[in-house]
Amino acid sequence: MRDLLGCSVLCDAFHAPAPGAATRLRNALIRIDRDGVIERVLLPDDPGHGVAVKQADRDGALLRLDGFLLPGFVDLHVHAPQIRQLGQALDLPLEEWLLRYTFPLEARFADLAFAETSYAALVADLLDGGTTTAVYFGTLHGPATLRLAELCVALGQRAMVGRVAMDRAELCPAHYRDLDANAALDGTLALIERIASIPDNRGLVRPIVTPRFVPACTDALLDGLGEIVRAHGCAVQTHCSESDWAHNDVLQRFGRSDAAVLDGFGLLTRRTVLAHGVALEQDDMDLIARKGAGVAHCALSNAYFAGAVFPLRAALARGVRVGLGTDISGGPSASMFEAARMAVAASRMLESGVDPSVPPERRGRPGSRIDIATAFHLATAGGAAVLDLPVGRFAPGMLFDAIRIDPHAPGGTLRVWGGESDADLLATLLYGASRANVASVWTGGRLAGRSAR
Amino acid sequence: MRDLLGCSVLCDAFHAPAPGAATRLRNALIRIDRDGVIERVLLPDDPGHGVAVKQADRDGALLRLDGFLLPGFVDLHVHAPQIRQLGQALDLPLEEWLLRYTFPLEARFADLAFAETSYAALVADLLDGGTTTAVYFGTLHGPATLRLAELCVALGQRAMVGRVAMDRAELCPAHYRDLDANAALDGTLALIERIASIPDNRGLVRPIVTPRFVPACTDALLDGLGEIVRAHGCAVQTHCSESDWAHNDVLQRFGRSDAAVLDGFGLLTRRTVLAHGVALEQDDMDLIARKGAGVAHCALSNAYFAGAVFPLRAALARGVRVGLGTDISGGPSASMFEAARMAVAASRMLESGVDPSVPPERRGRPGSRIDIATAFHLATAGGAAVLDLPVGRFAPGMLFDAIRIDPHAPGGTLRVWGGESDADLLATLLYGASRANVASVWTGGRLAGRSAR
Ligand SMILES: [Zn+2]
Ligand SMILES: [Zn+2]
Repeated sequence: MRDLLGCSVLCDAFHAPAPGAATRLRNALIRIDRDGVIERVLLPDDPGHGVAVKQADRDGALLRLDGFLLPGFVDLHVHAPQIRQLGQALDLPLEEWLLRYTFPLEARFADLAFAETSYAALVADLLDGGTTTAVYFGTLHGPATLRLAELCVALGQRAMVGRVAMDRAELCPAHYRDLDANAALDGTLALIERIASIPDNRGLVRPIVTPRFVPACTDALLDGLGEIVRAHGCAVQTHCSESDWAHNDVLQRFGRSDAAVLDGFGLLTRRTVLAHGVALEQDDMDLIARKGAGVAHCALSNAYFAGAVFPLRAALARGVRVGLGTDISGGPSASMFEAARMAVAASRMLESGVDPSVPPERRGRPGSRIDIATAFHLATAGGAAVLDLPVGRFAPGMLFDAIRIDPHAPGGTLRVWGGESDADLLATLLYGASRANVASVWTGGRLAGRSAR
Repeated sequence: MRDLLGCSVLCDAFHAPAPGAATRLRNALIRIDRDGVIERVLLPDDPGHGVAVKQADRDGALLRLDGFLLPGFVDLHVHAPQIRQLGQALDLPLEEWLLRYTFPLEARFADLAFAETSYAALVADLLDGGTTTAVYFGTLHGPATLRLAELCVALGQRAMVGRVAMDRAELCPAHYRDLDANAALDGTLALIERIASIPDNRGLVRPIVTPRFVPACTDALLDGLGEIVRAHGCAVQTHCSESDWAHNDVLQRFGRSDAAVLDGFGLLTRRTVLAHGVALEQDDMDLIARKGAGVAHCALSNAYFAGAVFPLRAALARGVRVGLGTDISGGPSASMFEAARMAVAASRMLESGVDPSVPPERRGRPGSRIDIATAFHLATAGGAAVLDLPVGRFAPGMLFDAIRIDPHAPGGTLRVWGGESDADLLATLLYGASRANVASVWTGGRLAGRSAR
């Protein structure tokens, strides 16, 4: 495999521009310009397809791809340091999980060598699993978080990288919190500037303002972060109404819900990513939709820490943008395939209910289910829309962020028998593939991750 | 890697002899006799460990294994023909799924060449994923189902293989059902005899009496199958109280629940595997426990087709034996890792409830959760106990059915950083591994699957 700048690929691709609307692009000719942007997509029935294939071939700029091309995944919610405890301690209640595992682990990222090892593995692992865009919470530490951003550039992952801001003594332990609001604001500003000056960044990696969650931040900090967002036009990420506890904690402190509080501080914008949102009320959803913010739905994590399922269909119906997140390590998997699968399973369990001792007519919440094509949309184009990034589908003007699925890869988990309908084939790929089947990864037309090495 | 008959392995192993009780066997010396049975297990603190290591080494019969050894998985519920539609059509209601997808697919197994291709891939895929024992529903067809049994012997998978019996016109379509009860009984008997005479079987593959489920069988068929079980001492598998619909259908027909009806026909025995059991009442659980039968808990499938979560902890508390199943293709994954993970997630969702609009205190069912160590037990020793097979843990007298996890395998999904507690390391392996990490597979001490080729 090779970089595709200025090339055309002839491939069998799937994408999902809208919820429920996945399309197969069979024998598609995708032309990528020298900046990694898709110039045009021609299907065999389109006029000029045959001529364009021949022309590209004559120019030595045609690549015939085996397997199936999918848009790369957009993981809207990753705690980068927590890659080191992936799958661990999921039986603990959130508070104990934070105090015994998570905060002590994050504190270790004061050590830049430790951070380097951890983050190099993380970025490589996510790319190799098909995640071409990741939205990262780092730690309190500027140097380590900058290193994460540099590694994304070096390894070719599109990313938003945030230094975590958390200064509220009521929630954050003395050994792991910002000294005060000013320290957090200075650290946030410093990272924004440093990411802008990473050599060869080419817009691949951007800073993101990252209040951990409202309960971890003083009013002064939230206020100052809102000003930074106004001044620099940065994206924002935070946790929002993850669970009853988090929702009620904010309600008690402010007399308003998470979403309204964030909006009051200028933190609910067209490029705000709200993780979880399980306990969002209808008013919150309407506010979020009006502001154009989005939700990172993390179905696996919610099974362990949220105490309920995010009402995804209700949010989509109210016009909320939604994408998917792994929530490493609140969720035990780094795979966006698994995030998509669990989004479907969780929606089915919300729809049917779970307790067989309750009569079926009172057990669940009708109309909650999504199908795997919708999960595929959320994991790609949906997440891209939350970030306002031109990726996630194969169309002119989009950056070519894509993965190639090889059904025959050694160690892989796919069987494609032939004769399937397009919908069945897509379901087979999405339910069946694992990292071994992700044979090539491109961001902006350049090979990335293992396939680039 | 190599066969281990008459050898000793020095390894780092985990097993889980009881729910919640996983143990690390570090630097364990496991001696395997010439029949593939574990002769002894010595830990470094046990007297004679050092001497035994040296002796085995001197005899040229010591194998030092890298990575981590786990007992092979026991998948209690697989519809063998449905491997060809894995991950497909999960949005359809059960009846349409059966009539439009499943029965027409199963009918194609009248073609022995089609069956051969499908089953060879299935058995290889399950072995390569770490499933050393599988309990298979075949189809109505004797030759195809016998071929499945032969392939298990040839590829080295321990298995129970059943020809499906289904003769009730109210449920089964004319193109795919037994002509009458006698035809089903003759077919069942014929397969029992033919499996017994497969060359080189060595007890690896056994027949299992397989009424599809009570709604698909006439009284005459259930009665006749009960007699076969009495006469031949065969194991039994069927679906039991999978959903409200199935549970109520049997109640209406017999005025008794599934479990009681099966018992009445002599089909509830010490080696009966009941798939799903989501709608089991307490009386049913008590009856099942008294008879020593077991449940194949298929958490992924239940999210799509059962309309609720199996109350696993309640069943364990009442003394019901439980193991796990993938329910290929009611569940979309062939991986017992994924079956174990979903058993945990589903238990958490049953415990917390799923609908955030319901107050937390009325949302879920307290005391329902299991942890990943318990899921590991169910996926190995628990399933073995249901089948009354001496596999699933590393102890004298057990057959050596094991898998070796290589954290560094190319295409794999594991990161072991070092310094983890035993519990964290086990969780990392179980949540993190995928098929590419399953580096070697043994059944009865012999290499099996990909690692044998
Ligand atoms: Zn999070
Ligand atoms: Zn089944």
